[in-house]
Amino acid sequence: MKGRRVFILRLDHRPKRDKRATTHLFLAARALGADGGFYSGEKDEKIQKSVEKVTEAWGGDFKVSYVTDWKRKIMEWKAEGGEVVHLTMYGLPLQHVIGRIRSIQGDLLVVVGGPKVSGSVYKLADWNVSVTSQPHSEISALALFLHELFEGRELSISFKDARIIIVPQKRGKKVLRLDLQGRE
Amino acid sequence: MKGRRVFILRLDHRPKRDKRATTHLFLAARALGADGGFYSGEKDEKIQKSVEKVTEAWGGDFKVSYVTDWKRKIMEWKAEGGEVVHLTMYGLPLQHVIGRIRSIQGDLLVVVGGPKVSGSVYKLADWNVSVTSQPHSEISALALFLHELFEGRELSISFKDARIIIVPQKRGKKVLRLDLQGRE
Repeated sequence: MKGRRVFILRLDHRPKRDKRATTHLFLAARALGADGGFYSGEKDEKIQKSVEKVTEAWGGDFKVSYVTDWKRKIMEWKAEGGEVVHLTMYGLPLQHVIGRIRSIQGDLLVVVGGPKVSGSVYKLADWNVSVTSQPHSEISALALFLHELFEGRELSISFKDARIIIVPQKRGKKVLRLDLQGRE
Repeated sequence: MKGRRVFILRLDHRPKRDKRATTHLFLAARALGADGGFYSGEKDEKIQKSVEKVTEAWGGDFKVSYVTDWKRKIMEWKAEGGEVVHLTMYGLPLQHVIGRIRSIQGDLLVVVGGPKVSGSVYKLADWNVSVTSQPHSEISALALFLHELFEGRELSISFKDARIIIVPQKRGKKVLRLDLQGRE
């Protein structure tokens, strides 16, 4: 599906308030084709473990790691030829800029702010992108961004080394559980 | 944009655990073109108030109300000619069924489960739809469902009677605040 890689950087994580939101953000990123995630703010091993457990069971190699200095992470990303997309309700409409963002060759770092994003994020980002200019959720914004970036192909990803595979059903649940050797 | 109306029914809300997730779910529903929301589980006026405050400031008429009996709500919906879509990781892939769901004339009730969805939801739903068969978030699942249902037109909705309007910017923030009479 890609040569270019896509990572998420979640700013200003606060374990108490954000535990579920940040975990869900990263699970959405993984399910929708991103390659991995970073977060700044307070270190929270539970987040990393929750995501790791999902990756172990459901496949792929999506991982989350902590960064102490988000500004440095962004600067390094750009220094290595990557580009930085900041999702913000104040930015340019997704539907107007996604064509140009799709054509970027370098790796993408998608920055998702906390409630009080420093003004310097807007300046450091190559792209400030809004998914509607309405208040909603960083999870829905990221989902629509990735969906548009990958043009819907992310809906059909097969995750390698999955131990749990769902077989889609009109009604009810069908789940395959594979043992470590990949036999059912 | 529509004749058909789209409402969200969030099952089994628990205020302690779900406060932010349910609020964000409804805010995403509103921002992405749904007409209103219902929830079951524990009554939680904070949810309704949070969403009301957003609607008052940002426009439109999206409202959330509590239902004591979700099963009855679903039965009534169907009795009145509406159809019911249940978002579940076990259902049929979004990309395979969305064309047929788009062509439904009746109102749609989009059911979003709690962690332990009763088996009867699968039976009552006209459509069990998966947005990937991977674990992620009800917020990302709903966002992609609405985006595909409305074919991207929801990204450009103008909300009527908005007091706050964002003017998209390449960098920084531009916000118009209107007084009650709609003058700047």
